[in-house]
Amino acid sequence: MAQKYIDLTTLKYLLNNVHGLSQLVQLERYKEHDPESMGMFLDSVKEFADRELFPFFKEMDDSPAAFKNGEVIVHEQVGVIMKKGGEMGLICGPFDYEIGGLQLPFIVHTAATYILDTANNHLPGYLTLTLGAAELITHFGNSALKDAYIPKMLSGEWGGTMCLTEPDAGSSLSDITTKATPTKDGHYHIKGQKIFISGGDYPYVENIVHLVLARIEGAPAGTKGISLFVVPKLRTENGNSIKNDVTTLSDFQKMGQRGFATTHLGFGDQNDCRGWLLGEAHQGLKYMFQMMNDARIGVGRGAAAISMAAYQASLQYAKERTQGRKLRSSGKKDPNESPCPIIEHPDVRRMLFLQKAIAEGSLSLILLAAKYHDLQLAEKDQATKEKYGMLLEIITPIVKTYPAEAGAVAVNNGLQVLGGYGFCTDFILQQYYRDIRIFSIYEGTTGIQSQDLLGRKVLMDNGRALELLLNEILETITEALTMENLKPYATILGDKIKLTQEVTAHLMPIATEGDFERYLSDANLFMEFLSHLVLGWIWLDIAATAEKDILKKDNTYPLDFYQGKIHTMKFYFKYELIKTSGLAKSIMHEDVLTLNSEKDYF
Amino acid sequence: MAQKYIDLTTLKYLLNNVHGLSQLVQLERYKEHDPESMGMFLDSVKEFADRELFPFFKEMDDSPAAFKNGEVIVHEQVGVIMKKGGEMGLICGPFDYEIGGLQLPFIVHTAATYILDTANNHLPGYLTLTLGAAELITHFGNSALKDAYIPKMLSGEWGGTMCLTEPDAGSSLSDITTKATPTKDGHYHIKGQKIFISGGDYPYVENIVHLVLARIEGAPAGTKGISLFVVPKLRTENGNSIKNDVTTLSDFQKMGQRGFATTHLGFGDQNDCRGWLLGEAHQGLKYMFQMMNDARIGVGRGAAAISMAAYQASLQYAKERTQGRKLRSSGKKDPNESPCPIIEHPDVRRMLFLQKAIAEGSLSLILLAAKYHDLQLAEKDQATKEKYGMLLEIITPIVKTYPAEAGAVAVNNGLQVLGGYGFCTDFILQQYYRDIRIFSIYEGTTGIQSQDLLGRKVLMDNGRALELLLNEILETITEALTMENLKPYATILGDKIKLTQEVTAHLMPIATEGDFERYLSDANLFMEFLSHLVLGWIWLDIAATAEKDILKKDNTYPLDFYQGKIHTMKFYFKYELIKTSGLAKSIMHEDVLTLNSEKDYF
Repeated sequence: MAQKYIDLTTLKYLLNNVHGLSQLVQLERYKEHDPESMGMFLDSVKEFADRELFPFFKEMDDSPAAFKNGEVIVHEQVGVIMKKGGEMGLICGPFDYEIGGLQLPFIVHTAATYILDTANNHLPGYLTLTLGAAELITHFGNSALKDAYIPKMLSGEWGGTMCLTEPDAGSSLSDITTKATPTKDGHYHIKGQKIFISGGDYPYVENIVHLVLARIEGAPAGTKGISLFVVPKLRTENGNSIKNDVTTLSDFQKMGQRGFATTHLGFGDQNDCRGWLLGEAHQGLKYMFQMMNDARIGVGRGAAAISMAAYQASLQYAKERTQGRKLRSSGKKDPNESPCPIIEHPDVRRMLFLQKAIAEGSLSLILLAAKYHDLQLAEKDQATKEKYGMLLEIITPIVKTYPAEAGAVAVNNGLQVLGGYGFCTDFILQQYYRDIRIFSIYEGTTGIQSQDLLGRKVLMDNGRALELLLNEILETITEALTMENLKPYATILGDKIKLTQEVTAHLMPIATEGDFERYLSDANLFMEFLSHLVLGWIWLDIAATAEKDILKKDNTYPLDFYQGKIHTMKFYFKYELIKTSGLAKSIMHEDVLTLNSEKDYF
Repeated sequence: MAQKYIDLTTLKYLLNNVHGLSQLVQLERYKEHDPESMGMFLDSVKEFADRELFPFFKEMDDSPAAFKNGEVIVHEQVGVIMKKGGEMGLICGPFDYEIGGLQLPFIVHTAATYILDTANNHLPGYLTLTLGAAELITHFGNSALKDAYIPKMLSGEWGGTMCLTEPDAGSSLSDITTKATPTKDGHYHIKGQKIFISGGDYPYVENIVHLVLARIEGAPAGTKGISLFVVPKLRTENGNSIKNDVTTLSDFQKMGQRGFATTHLGFGDQNDCRGWLLGEAHQGLKYMFQMMNDARIGVGRGAAAISMAAYQASLQYAKERTQGRKLRSSGKKDPNESPCPIIEHPDVRRMLFLQKAIAEGSLSLILLAAKYHDLQLAEKDQATKEKYGMLLEIITPIVKTYPAEAGAVAVNNGLQVLGGYGFCTDFILQQYYRDIRIFSIYEGTTGIQSQDLLGRKVLMDNGRALELLLNEILETITEALTMENLKPYATILGDKIKLTQEVTAHLMPIATEGDFERYLSDANLFMEFLSHLVLGWIWLDIAATAEKDILKKDNTYPLDFYQGKIHTMKFYFKYELIKTSGLAKSIMHEDVLTLNSEKDYF
């Protein structure tokens, strides 16, 4: 089995040099933290991952979480990660001191969870869902709810889940039918079913706290009639902990991420399920979406991590496996030469650079989003806060989508590096290949994200968020134009900004004329287009940082490390960013082929 | 589970209308056949597939072929397909009458096997490998070998395999070390190991005939010292059938196509394995590659079939599943409306059209290759034979690669249509997703095919094969230019011909200057580029056929059927063919980033 699953050096370089962690911790909120101690924290997380996560990765796939005799069975490491992860601050990290948190920058917490994901993506979800549920209670709960739930959740003694999807309401949350009936005791009776509930039930924690979207009787139809409830597995009555009529009805067996239990939950089958309203009635979806940004960064993080781990595994194989010979100038090979390691073959290098470009680019992208989260939260100036809020809004659908979609392509190339062995269960690549596939579906499919990006975020505040994003990109271009080595690439990216403006100028009139269905019909292509622009920027930023470090003769890292970053930027530009031309043409194409076609064309 | 797994109407339309089966059977070789009886044959194959293949598809994945206690265990349908498939002529079909074949056009045999593949891709390999092995013996064996093996193989009583790969010689066949030592009795002693042997062992047949690449002692190094041997599992001695010291050492458990046993075979562990030389010494690789074209068409056929089956499954789901509502001109939805079938959503239609374009386009491509095979074989005129031989040579790497690579993308979109359910094992899409992944590896990876295309086929006979191919494409363009409806698309494809010439004009000097490694460094991109050109042609050809049928008011099929084909051509041009622009730019890019980079850049 592959030994290395993460490039920790690159993670730290991106955190410190590219994203300027030392500047971030000058903000009042983070002043107790310093880069050095945070680096040590990450090292300890890596050791934890080496010991408690990575060794169990394959066996969690071989023996999936399962629902047997009315019980959900999961690997015992789930207990370890909840307990020790809780102790290490992997749940409470980003929370305020006053509620028991560490007030850790979200970018560092993201890096820490990323390390866990690279080691074994089946486990961290138990922690992160608990964190997400606790965050909702912290933001919108009254002090009674906070006191009752938060300490136990932040310590990992209790788990948490998000219950959105129903059998007839997947991507369409407005069709939620789970019912909440008020009682005179202040709580509600909850009745309904939820599907695809990750970590919906498992032993090894004392309680599980479900955050459930439901409709209060008589609420308006659609998304405006949905409220959010805290529904624990066990409730406290007269000082006793008793069952709250939340039952696992079945589970979902999946192609990948099989160690992460996915359940079908019933609430109130015996009419004895109590829920507590979180915040105000009918505001549930709004609340849910306030923390959805973080959840979506989390999905991007998981996918980015899998592409990193797969890259490391295929890189190791390519260095060790000898096969074939280098071509001579005649185009022939000399059979008497010894075979070379396959990393010498240009096509293998192409597959490795593609993986590196996607894996490291995705990592830098999720760190950027986490930084925006931090800046929005911790900056004092209202205009600055809003600016980073807007940037976070527009970048989030890309952060959710690119690492998943491009990550699947990266892992696919990783598998291919191994040839026939890549397809065999004795090698780990095929597991990464199966695991990463869920990330294009989690927390809003790629289709939903693309509609969010083009239909909501691009139009938001008259296009202000996109304008802010393009300005950020222009700043990097301006800086890179001053470096002789990077000038040609900065110029190319500048042209792509113009192309973006051309594309939006083409699309806007369609939206303003009210032809919304047409406006959004190629939203997926727009997502791909804008993702490439953003990743081109991410890579130019990394290259500019490396170039500066070379110029100032910083020898913290070997020269090859810096040059490898610049080289990968060039690779991204040559092989990936170039696709924006074709995509722009497709988007601006006059044929609209997915609206007017007859059903019987299929 | 999905019920429909093939669009038989489209298969027959492609065979008869697009590829002109009725003209093909005017050739002397096929004169006993007529389109009607061949249509009935295909119907009977479909019934066979309905009954004996499709119902076992999921359970073959759930209970994979396995090596236990020294025995290879496979699903009992393996016995059924060998016996009944043999009886139905699914092995002997394309063979000459005189050797016991049906002299069926290869295009019809390909269509028949394709039907089997769509129903259950884990089973037909047992038949097709037997066919391939029998074909080699037929072509290169002496009459003793033919008499001993062919009748039993064509009837399906005996199975066959191809044994190429060794632990240290995967893509690099020149490193084969299996030894063959001549004896004075005319046969050879064989000693060595072979891995990844599909259908390498199974009960339900009386014998298994291995075609083994090995090196006669003292043979030259490299590919020129490899010979081909017939090595049966059981040999006949003094009228008795005795073991021939071929043993299964282990098997390979895989991510997909799990019902198709993949074995690791040992030859001569007890120094008692006999092999019979096929044809002349040291010609083994040449022989193997003479039938490799058919094997590679077979790989394309399997992948094309899986993309078809996945398309049908996701299409059925999209028609039945209701969720969400159509957008109104305001960009909002009315929650009081009932949800619509998801096929109404433009993005779902996009995913379905993409699948249709790839699945049907791949099918037409493999039928075209099979037709070239037929014409090369059955035409009398030497120049015509050679022409089709050249066309077959240049198109084969694309036929092997496109259905596998694009097919994986198609299936990926099919899975996405189902959202979360697509990832669950209760739905069949995830199985197609896993199964199709092997086709980019089988019979020469995509990397190897790309090197074959650019390094061998494009250069062949001073570029004559490519020229012939472009001429064929130009013929279709010329015809389509006469149809008002298709003119714009014909013009676009004409421009792409020019772009192809530009790309090759850029590449050729690099090869002639002897910088072969650089010439081939982006062979994969060239493969993708030329595949799009060929598929654009395939679709223009289908559209031109449909347009002609509409113009002559042929009402064999409903109007929507014809228009659906033309619409899908437009879809291919808008979303796929357009990618050639970016690919051409990447290929002609001045940065060569996969040759000069340092290993430590990774």
